Amino acid sequence: MPQLKAILFDIDDTLFSTTEFAHKARRNAVRAMLQAGLDLPEAVVERELEEVLAEFSSNYEHHFDKLLMRLRPPSLARVNPALIVAAGVAAYHDTKFRELVPFDDVLPLLGALRKAGLRLGVITHGWTVKQAEKLVRLGLVPFLEPSAVFISDQIGISKPNPKLWTLALADMPLLPQEAMYVGDSPEHDIAPPRTLGMITVWAARAAKHGLDGTAIQPDHTVHDFRELAAILRERYGVRLDPF
Amino acid sequence: MPQLKAILFDIDDTLFSTTEFAHKARRNAVRAMLQAGLDLPEAVVERELEEVLAEFSSNYEHHFDKLLMRLRPPSLARVNPALIVAAGVAAYHDTKFRELVPFDDVLPLLGALRKAGLRLGVITHGWTVKQAEKLVRLGLVPFLEPSAVFISDQIGISKPNPKLWTLALADMPLLPQEAMYVGDSPEHDIAPPRTLGMITVWAARAAKHGLDGTAIQPDHTVHDFRELAAILRERYGVRLDPF
Repeated sequence: MPQLKAILFDIDDTLFSTTEFAHKARRNAVRAMLQAGLDLPEAVVERELEEVLAEFSSNYEHHFDKLLMRLRPPSLARVNPALIVAAGVAAYHDTKFRELVPFDDVLPLLGALRKAGLRLGVITHGWTVKQAEKLVRLGLVPFLEPSAVFISDQIGISKPNPKLWTLALADMPLLPQEAMYVGDSPEHDIAPPRTLGMITVWAARAAKHGLDGTAIQPDHTVHDFRELAAILRERYGVRLDPF
Repeated sequence: MPQLKAILFDIDDTLFSTTEFAHKARRNAVRAMLQAGLDLPEAVVERELEEVLAEFSSNYEHHFDKLLMRLRPPSLARVNPALIVAAGVAAYHDTKFRELVPFDDVLPLLGALRKAGLRLGVITHGWTVKQAEKLVRLGLVPFLEPSAVFISDQIGISKPNPKLWTLALADMPLLPQEAMYVGDSPEHDIAPPRTLGMITVWAARAAKHGLDGTAIQPDHTVHDFRELAAILRERYGVRLDPF
């Protein structure tokens, strides 16, 4: 078996709980808007915001504008809507500032992997500056090879197209068997690199979709990164410090 | 003389030092980009960023993209530029979070004015969500009449067009002589409301341009808001608590 040389990670719901963070950020934004004068029940505003987010793509400032357009709250006769939108935007940003943190075993794992001589990178789907900002705020950049950050929006190839992984392998350069990919979505993170012959790890702890009813078979399934460390030690001969 | 009923304020360089804040935010962003791998001298990057800001309007994420396009640093062969841009964006936002504070006599003045029964508002020029976010982050919203926040971008009338003040007076509603306007720019903040017969106060402490060589004559000139408080007590009979 060729030696494992590199591990590439998905970001969302793999390195941090995107779902939990998004929920906190939305809740804080909605509460700030209520405090700024939006006079509707919190649950009504939250539900409508979820609809906006489902219908329109990622520019949250416009999301809050659209939310007010849709809700047409009575308060708009008395409060400049920009003050309500701005309260939401500020609360959203402040949540990022305070609460964007990786799962607690991420930094220890990445530190140990670097020390063991493995090359580390990211292959992620999303809007360039948002995905990059997540890496910055999560404190992950110092562990990554600064040219091994592959963002679909920047490359023009979207998950689950396997060409995204092909391009990363060619750039680094690596053989598929020398590289492991870790992600939470069977369809978007496991199936495509598996077709190329990469080693695939399904990070199940925050996964929205399971493997049942799919034909997708990851090489490994882990529920936290201590489990991943054990696999790397036992199956791939990686000399990982305990953490 | 009719009774003074309301005071309306400009925001930038009147309620906080926009210039000092912008300098800090830019410096922090540039330093974060250097730390993220941008391998050029700090002074070169700062100078280029100032040029970008002078040439393109307010969307800082794109500013940092453009900065990298122009600088073409050697590091881009080794570092994904999105990581450098995101480091700048995050540092810029974090500076807002930590350092957007009003001049130290602003909150005491506004508190005393509210207690004295004066109506308070804002007439400001700029991008809607940015100006509103400044009010939120500066902590000024609780002191203002929530419908007396007039933002040029939202209204479709730009400073120094006096119609911006006419519209505010009509909305509140107030006679010109019942309302005072406080701002730092002779041309943008003093001349237009003065033509309508409003009481004008030139806040000189952070003003970029003086009165010399202009025919503009504010009703009052103040260097801080204790001076303004004294004028309000002595000349307008406002019963202001000391602060």
